[in-house]
Amino acid sequence: MEVKEDQIVYTAERIENFIASAYLALGFPETDSRVCAARMTEADLRGTDTHGIFRLPQYYQRIRAGAINLHPHVHPVRENAVTALVDGDNGMGHVIMTTAAELAIRKASESGLAWIGVFHTNHAGAAAVYSTMVLPHDMIGLYMTVANANHMPPWGGVELILGTNPISITIPAGEEPPIALDMATTVSSYGKIKLAAQKGESIPVGWMVDRKGQPLTDPRRAGEGFLVPIGGYKGYGLNVIIGMLAGILNGAFFGKNIVDFTKDVSTPQNGGHMIFAMRVDNFQPVEDFKREMDRAIREIRNSKRMEGVERIWLPGEMEFRTAIERRKHGIPIARAVVEGLRHLARELNLPDRLD
Amino acid sequence: MEVKEDQIVYTAERIENFIASAYLALGFPETDSRVCAARMTEADLRGTDTHGIFRLPQYYQRIRAGAINLHPHVHPVRENAVTALVDGDNGMGHVIMTTAAELAIRKASESGLAWIGVFHTNHAGAAAVYSTMVLPHDMIGLYMTVANANHMPPWGGVELILGTNPISITIPAGEEPPIALDMATTVSSYGKIKLAAQKGESIPVGWMVDRKGQPLTDPRRAGEGFLVPIGGYKGYGLNVIIGMLAGILNGAFFGKNIVDFTKDVSTPQNGGHMIFAMRVDNFQPVEDFKREMDRAIREIRNSKRMEGVERIWLPGEMEFRTAIERRKHGIPIARAVVEGLRHLARELNLPDRLD
Repeated sequence: MEVKEDQIVYTAERIENFIASAYLALGFPETDSRVCAARMTEADLRGTDTHGIFRLPQYYQRIRAGAINLHPHVHPVRENAVTALVDGDNGMGHVIMTTAAELAIRKASESGLAWIGVFHTNHAGAAAVYSTMVLPHDMIGLYMTVANANHMPPWGGVELILGTNPISITIPAGEEPPIALDMATTVSSYGKIKLAAQKGESIPVGWMVDRKGQPLTDPRRAGEGFLVPIGGYKGYGLNVIIGMLAGILNGAFFGKNIVDFTKDVSTPQNGGHMIFAMRVDNFQPVEDFKREMDRAIREIRNSKRMEGVERIWLPGEMEFRTAIERRKHGIPIARAVVEGLRHLARELNLPDRLD
Repeated sequence: MEVKEDQIVYTAERIENFIASAYLALGFPETDSRVCAARMTEADLRGTDTHGIFRLPQYYQRIRAGAINLHPHVHPVRENAVTALVDGDNGMGHVIMTTAAELAIRKASESGLAWIGVFHTNHAGAAAVYSTMVLPHDMIGLYMTVANANHMPPWGGVELILGTNPISITIPAGEEPPIALDMATTVSSYGKIKLAAQKGESIPVGWMVDRKGQPLTDPRRAGEGFLVPIGGYKGYGLNVIIGMLAGILNGAFFGKNIVDFTKDVSTPQNGGHMIFAMRVDNFQPVEDFKREMDRAIREIRNSKRMEGVERIWLPGEMEFRTAIERRKHGIPIARAVVEGLRHLARELNLPDRLD
């Protein structure tokens, strides 16, 4: 495993315990603290470093500002055999989404499939952490959410009223790693742009445009332009639909009413998520399906490569392998992030100061 | 309505009757002939000219070659309250998908939602024609299909083993036109590339790459390169997932086993489609939902536009307005297409020769 000079490596167990102790110290119940810690550590294990422990100081700010309910009554307000609308009661997104995913799995086990919508929720971290929960049950998973800040205009517009609205879809395989797509509907994240600016590098054509729609390649000018949706108007369309299905359908916010959680730490967000689970054996015997998935995966991986390309990856395969490696050798965390966490540990008087 | 010099305008009724008479003459039952004609005309009405009557000569070739079953026994081979796997028995895709969509609506009406998978099917025309069938029932629709030819390599590869695998998602609105996304997962269709080559125009960076991954902008060199998925590896991931959910999950073809219907008119295809329908009122009272959809749609449309942009469109809005216009003023069809249809009319001795 490659560890950079500006990183420190901790075991997954230590990371998870650290996070759990922080939530406990902030007043969350033991179970909920453990759930948040597990989901955040899973994000770090998968290499989604921007959605794991990195977020703890940001969550801490919102919690301290009283914007999160420490003891939410997470409960369905509408429900039938195959759907539910769950009121998250403004709790931590990780707790609410874990409850929703478990409900989806239970209903799908009994009835074949289930779609659970959630409102009054908050940032839940990495999308694939939830959509992959269905995989051990031989189910297909789908997760969508309304992003917690608006960084993109509609196609042809200049007003920032859309988020990066991510989607994650998972499909079980046999001997091969499962398929797990997890993507924002913009070509690049805002984080990558900021990183390029820090490094003094230019960004590729297609990541951003200026207010006249011309390519913007100097990331220091990011404030004069916008993120570009994947496939132009196509990604814009997908983005809007995700916002409507994860937001409006659940009575959650979408559009101008989104509370930007990077700028406002105290106003409740009324976030919206959805999760869908469906048993494979509605359609095929599980073993047949997995064998055929393995065949297709190998066919793609072993197909002829472009000059200079070492390997063809399937969606989620890289994250799957990263998780195996990090579970074994630990999770590398940037020193700058560790400094913030040490500060937080001192403030909360946590048992582990990450020294 | 704009009619170009090389176009002839026919009423939708005349187009639909013409298509139905062709299928009747080819030996299809009256009902199935009517269904195919209705779905193909709907594509033309929506402005999806590449998926309407334009396709009739191609279908005709396959039918004449005996590659399509004229009297299929379309029936579920697995079924529960909310799912079904339908054997299309190698019939016309339009007939099979209409049956599947009606089954999805019936099950969703009773149980809240339904996912219907289809195998042993054929090209069904425009995706949105099926996903929009659920809208009058106040349902959300999702349609995915495995494309009938492979024009794209996996991300980092050079072997053409993936199709354009389209997806369509629909959401009802109130006074506003419903949302209806219908998109291939490649930046451009192959048709647009061919058109640019004919006109001697170059194509934009981002539509195609050569075998080394470099931008290809001369469409006459299209044979040396590949279509590019939307958002690069993201669109590739979405593409593979659509192939797996519409293909493998249904026991239909996906990958190298795809029969290229542009080159082989006689081998049955074992195509795969899926359609999903879900009642809005599982989650919100229909009227509340529609009011909120209208609000979001208007917020997006009325947001500040980029210099030179006349209007911000919602997904499917343009097609919705085109359908209203074409139902009123007729459907313009390219003379070259009409010539082919006249030839077909003579061969089949149809009552209308489109004179």
